[in-house]
Order: sequence, then C-alpha cells, then structure tokens
Amino acid sequence: EYVQALREWVAVESDSSDITKRSEVQRMMELVAEKLRVLGGKVEMVDIGMQKLPEGGTIALPKVVTAEFGSNARKATVCVYGHADVQPARKEDGWSTEPYNLTDIYGNLYGRGTSDNKAPVLAWIHAVEAYQALEIDLPVNVKFIIEGMEETGSNGLAAMIEAQRDTFFSNVDYIIISDCGWLSTRPALTYGTRGNCYFFAEVEGPKQDLHSGVHGGTVKEPMTDLIGILDTMISSNGSILIPGIRDAVAPFSDDEWKLYQKIDFDMDSYKAKIGVDQLMYENKVELLAHRWRYPTVSIHGIVGAFSAPGTKTVIPAKVTAKFSIRQVPDMDPAVVEKQVTDHLQSEFAKRKSPNKLKVTMIIGAKPWLADPKHPLYQAGKAAVQRVFNTEPDLIREGGTIPIARTFQDVMDKSIIMLPIGGFDDGLHSQNEKMSRYNYIEGTKLFIAYLHEVAQIKKD
Amino acid sequence: EYVQALREWVAVESDSSDITKRSEVQRMMELVAEKLRVLGGKVEMVDIGMQKLPEGGTIALPKVVTAEFGSNARKATVCVYGHADVQPARKEDGWSTEPYNLTDIYGNLYGRGTSDNKAPVLAWIHAVEAYQALEIDLPVNVKFIIEGMEETGSNGLAAMIEAQRDTFFSNVDYIIISDCGWLSTRPALTYGTRGNCYFFAEVEGPKQDLHSGVHGGTVKEPMTDLIGILDTMISSNGSILIPGIRDAVAPFSDDEWKLYQKIDFDMDSYKAKIGVDQLMYENKVELLAHRWRYPTVSIHGIVGAFSAPGTKTVIPAKVTAKFSIRQVPDMDPAVVEKQVTDHLQSEFAKRKSPNKLKVTMIIGAKPWLADPKHPLYQAGKAAVQRVFNTEPDLIREGGTIPIARTFQDVMDKSIIMLPIGGFDDGLHSQNEKMSRYNYIEGTKLFIAYLHEVAQIKKD
Repeated sequence: EYVQALREWVAVESDSSDITKRSEVQRMMELVAEKLRVLGGKVEMVDIGMQKLPEGGTIALPKVVTAEFGSNARKATVCVYGHADVQPARKEDGWSTEPYNLTDIYGNLYGRGTSDNKAPVLAWIHAVEAYQALEIDLPVNVKFIIEGMEETGSNGLAAMIEAQRDTFFSNVDYIIISDCGWLSTRPALTYGTRGNCYFFAEVEGPKQDLHSGVHGGTVKEPMTDLIGILDTMISSNGSILIPGIRDAVAPFSDDEWKLYQKIDFDMDSYKAKIGVDQLMYENKVELLAHRWRYPTVSIHGIVGAFSAPGTKTVIPAKVTAKFSIRQVPDMDPAVVEKQVTDHLQSEFAKRKSPNKLKVTMIIGAKPWLADPKHPLYQAGKAAVQRVFNTEPDLIREGGTIPIARTFQDVMDKSIIMLPIGGFDDGLHSQNEKMSRYNYIEGTKLFIAYLHEVAQIKKD
Repeated sequence: EYVQALREWVAVESDSSDITKRSEVQRMMELVAEKLRVLGGKVEMVDIGMQKLPEGGTIALPKVVTAEFGSNARKATVCVYGHADVQPARKEDGWSTEPYNLTDIYGNLYGRGTSDNKAPVLAWIHAVEAYQALEIDLPVNVKFIIEGMEETGSNGLAAMIEAQRDTFFSNVDYIIISDCGWLSTRPALTYGTRGNCYFFAEVEGPKQDLHSGVHGGTVKEPMTDLIGILDTMISSNGSILIPGIRDAVAPFSDDEWKLYQKIDFDMDSYKAKIGVDQLMYENKVELLAHRWRYPTVSIHGIVGAFSAPGTKTVIPAKVTAKFSIRQVPDMDPAVVEKQVTDHLQSEFAKRKSPNKLKVTMIIGAKPWLADPKHPLYQAGKAAVQRVFNTEPDLIREGGTIPIARTFQDVMDKSIIMLPIGGFDDGLHSQNEKMSRYNYIEGTKLFIAYLHEVAQIKKD
C-alpha cells in the first residue's frame, strides 16, 4: 500500500526547475493536499504568488500545502516540513529505468523524487495514519508544511512563513525536516547543512554566432574569456581562489574533530558508491569536513555554447556559465555575491576584452547549524534506539535545505533533521532510489519519534 | 525560376552532422542528380560506403553525384565541385525566418544552405543550362562532383576521388570550387583556405553525475579539470600557447603584405556586420592575416555538462570539450594532433587529478594555397571584368574546404575558387542568406568564366 502510494506520486513529473512542467508541480501539490484531507487534517493550499522569469514575465508558484492534526494546547506541536517537487530527470541522462515509473529492483524503489523527498513525506503522513488506525491519540499535535519549489531555492516560501508566523506557526514548538539521508547503513541525525549561492556568469560578444573558420582570429571569443575567468576560481587541488571566501569559514574545533572521528564512515565504500578511484582527501575527518563544513565551488555547465552531437564550427556569441558555491558558517551570501562578482569582474578586466561580463546570483541560501545536544536530538536518539536498536551518527549535510535557516531566522524555533534516506540513494543523480527497508523502517522511526518528542519538557 | 529551384532545395533539411537527418541528405542528393539528368548530363550516384559512428555502428554515407557534359578531347575539361549538405539550423537558435523555408526579404533570400552551398551549385547548373538554351556549344567540357558530407569533413570523398583518379578525373584539367564568399561588395577570387583540426577532449571522473551539495568537496570535478586545461591553450589576447603550433606557420612575406594592403576591406563595416565594438587587431592587414593565414583556436562548447534552463546542482561525471584549430601552411594536422594531445595531457598531469583525460582528433583537414598568378586566376579576372566591370580582390578564406587540398594532393590539378556568395551571407550562422543579385549575377559570372577558361592554352 505504501509502495503504491509512492508509485502514484513518483509518476507526477513535478520538476520545479522547468517552467513547462509547472502544471505537473501544481497537480502534485493537489495530490499531497488530498492525501492529508483523507486523514481528516485541516488542510489549506496557500497561494504564495508569482515567480519572476529571467527572460521577463511571471508564472504562478506552486501552492504550499499546510495541514493540522490536533490542537490540544497541553501537547507539544511539531511541524513537519517536506517538499514534493523533484530535480530534472530524463531516461537519456543514463537512467536504467524510466525515471517517473517507480521500479522495484531487489527491494530498491527506483524513480526520480523517491528519496528526495516524496517517500519521506509519505512516511510522515503514514505515521499519522498509523496512530489513527491503531486508535491511539497523537502524542503531539502534528502540522505539515509541504512545498513545491525546494529544488530551485524554495522561491516564495520564506515570505509565506513570515506572513504566517503569528498564525499557523504561532503554536509550533519544533520543526522536523526529513529531506536528507544517512551517511552509512547506520541511522543518523543531522545537525547542519551547507547553504548555496548559485551564480550565472554571462559573457556576451558578437551579436550572433560566427563561423569559426571565416571569423576565427578577428574577435575575442566569449568562450575563451569565460573559461579564462572560471579557471581563476579554483586551484587544481580544489582550493577556492576567490579572495575573502575562505576567511569567513568558522575554524574547525577540537570537539568537532572528535565528533567526526566517531562517525561510522567507510572511505572505500564511499569511493565505490560514487565511482572514483581517489578522493580529494584520504583522511576520513578531513573528507567529511570538506563535505560538510567547508565551502566548495562546482561548475555545472555552460549554456549557449555548442553541446549537441557533431562537430559544429561555431564561435558562440553569448555563453553563460552556471556555478555554485556551497555556504558554511559564518559565510554570508550577500558578502559572497560581492566577493564573486568583484573577483570575476576584476579577472575579466585583466583580459582587456571588448566582450561584456554579467554576473548574477540566482540563489543565495544560508547554511544552517543546530546544537546536537538539544533535547530534540535526545528524542531522536531514543527513537532510533527503539526502532533500530543502535546509536545514530550525528552528522551534517553537504547539501542545502534553505528552509531550515529560514525557520531558524524567522521563528527562532528549534529544528531537527531526521533523515530516513539511504546513503546511496543518488539524490539529483541518475537512478535515484529509496529502499523498501528505509521507507518502511523510516515510517516506524517517525511513529516512534512522535512518541519521544512528546516526552520533552516544554520550556 | 532560379529562385523557385533554390526554394525547393532549401526546403530539404540536408544537415549532414545529424545522423537522424541522413535520409534528407540522401533525398537532397537525388534532387541534385535529377536536375543534372534533366539537362542531359551523364549522371552517376556514387556509393562511397559507410560512416563509422562514435558510439559504435555505421550509417550509409550520402551518395556523391557526378555528371558530365561534353567529352570533346580538343576542349579543356573543368570539374565543378560543390556540396548540397548544410549546417544545423533551428528557428530557436535565433532565426528571424523558418530556416528551411526560403524567404525573400528586400531581395535577400534567407534560408539554411542558400549561400553555403546550394545557390552556387544551382548557379553552375544554370550556367550549363544557359548555353543549352542559347544553343551555344559549351566552350569546355563540364563535369560536376557534388557531395553531401562537406559540413562534417567530406567523409568518404577523398577515397572516392582517389579511386576515380584515372577514370572520371583522368581528363579533368581544372577544378573549380564556389564554396566561399566575397570579402566586400567587390567580387573576389580566392587562392587559399585554412584547414581545420577538430578535437574532442573528454574528462571522465565519477561513474555518474553527483549532487554538488552532497558530494562537493570530496572529488576532483571533471569540469574544473577540463576548464583548467582548456585555459592553457590560448592567452587572453588570443595567442596560441600550445608549444610548437606557431613554429610551423609560414612567415608573412612582403608580397603578401602588399597584396593584403590593396584589398577592399572596411574595418567598420566588418565590425558592424559581426556585431562587435572592437576587433582583435585594429590594422586591416593584421586583421586579414589573422583571419586567413594564422592559426586560431575556437572552443565551441562542452558536452555532458548542464546546459538546460534552470539551476541544477550537479557535478557532471563526464564532460567533453569540443574545440578546433584552424590550419595554415606549413602546419600538418598529424603533427598538430600530437602537439595538442601532448600539451593537454601534460597540463592535465600537472593537476594530479584521478580523473581520466582522452583527447581525440575528429577532423584533420589540411590548408590549401594556390598561386594567384596562375592562368585560371587570369581567366577569373577577365570574367569578373566582363560581368561586373571591375577588378576582383585576390583573397584567402578563413574557413576550410578540405577537398581543395585533396584535389591538389591526389590529382595535382590546378584549382580555382570562384565565389559568388556575399560578404554578409552569414554562413553557419542564424539568418544565412544569398542575395538575388549575387545569385543571378553569379550565374552570369559562371557563364563568362566557362568562356574565359576555354582561352587558356593547354600545357
């Protein structure tokens, strides 16, 4: 039954980054609302306005679904955050199965959005359903906030949270987010995420593409300029060369070192999982530190250049690099935006090119960090102990869940990230999956967590 | 009537670089053959074998059309070379008109393949037709060789020419190629073309794309490596930094300087035409020299990276840069292949990356250079004088017509390039066109040239 529910959700291509799929995202949000209504929740679909498009014009943002189960003032109130949108996926990208057709292979459920984040959202809904089915009162009031723009930076959500701070969120004690994964086969509690600043760097030259034979040698080519400035951002050993970026990074403490040292993490199986012979660092602590608490630059691609099959001989007239810099405490996206823009403009100026460079920060999401000694994490340890009979790892997440920081900044609520995704689920990759084991045991974990969190003494 | 014939040919999407369009290229070759048969030529469609595909497998190459008008041993025999395939074109690339629907705007005939090379091929056929219509004997025997793979490197043609050297080509005295354009509004004769070495440089890392948040910082990213090595090929002022490449370039002679100095070329209208504020060189002679007789590197694009709309946060696992180096005398593609491969591998080795680099030369076309004092060029001058009442410019071409060099190497025949395309036809670009003026007057030029070339004393 749980698998069938997931199959129906995965079948919806709710890719929020592609505006041509916006109606699918909207339909997905309707399905989420419907599921919550069936359980008797007080459900609303909140209009969060319009999205501005880079090329001008606007498009409606997907509605945010909120729901409420119980309003007993003597109980604590938890609010579960999740999202129902997904990253892009096409069979041609190298999927072994149809990405939007849930496929069970040896107990692994393959499909875009399974682990990120449809199965965890369903598991939370099923946890509430389980209490109802067993006719046990929910030990806490449970609220839901499920959005449809997470994969593109949670556009519009922060404003909605701010607007409802004194209404929907006024009685919320704790926020629970399950939009991440374990580090190994051992369950984990997550106490930090990196933020993300996503940039477009556009170099524009001739008014149209030129034949590289006929005109090559007469113009400074935008691609050459773009590659020249991109190459100044990162050294060959991965260090960020943009002045100032590394100064803001919080020093690595002895306590952190000890915590990292204890974590269950096998370098060899990590290598095997991502399919590399050699990692950037050979030491576990150093590797995890660079994954979780140091910034990184990734260049994702170049738009406007020739990327089709064949041997076109073109000088592309306008090319745009897409890259992002993961943010860690105490970096500030507004400062990073200036550092990156200044650096690229200054490197570009050195080239004395007649082309034009435009640098734009498209996403500026802050990092988030919690105190792993908080009672929410004690409750998490107890719930993991009950369901899995083991201690969880205390981990951080290299990826970004921008909304964690928003909840913290806007409402000053305590937050826990309680993942159920497997370490090898392949989020954002080809062949994303969620195992039946993690999906079902994860549902049990959520049921147990609702029980444990009710034991926390209210301040 | 001439325009209608062109419209029918342009309507065929004979894009030879896209194997899914191969049947259209084949159909185009049938149309060419049909047109020549109608005029009573002795026409053959020559099978030139199969094309190997990069991903394995083979596909039939488009047949080569040969035709023969007249076989009088006392007359000279010219062989007109042309091609009927085109570069890719899609409306979305920025065309103002449908690229495969010939559109007449103020006397300019817009459409993919108009100038490159369908109108010139038709003009040659119409020149033969004109003699027939006027019931004048052709002053020379005229042969045609029209291929369908020029835009992707004339795959299979060199072998076919070699095979027919002692049959179809045995009595050919002169080769005429009209696959280029004038430099200004003044007619031109072309005595040299650059060659082209087209490379793929592939950097392969993780076995699949990775989430840049979850895994950024743990692996050396293939994009960073690729950009790092690409940036070592060209300085910011456009100089090629690959060791050895510039050593092979023939020195610029005083005679050349004088010839270039005389050429009718307006820097400002060239700037306006390609839409730049500043060129690489401010001096006419230097600019033309870098366009025609110095090598250049153009980076066309990167395949495998993220080039779609949106903000995907991916570490691409395998990325392939496509770039090409224009060849000039006395460069040798085989030597260039080794220089480029060695340079990139050595720069890559410095990065100490666990990723794998593979450099492949996909096309290796030699440059071609003729003696502009040859009688073929005297005949060209006379024909231009007759039709346009002016002296032609003696120019070279930055682009590549690989077959010129093949004709020279295999058959040791004298070659002339006799262009009729306008200087602003936009070959390989959006909005390619051929003006009615150049198309019709060009046909007259060909008629006159057949007369003039008959005056050359046979050796």
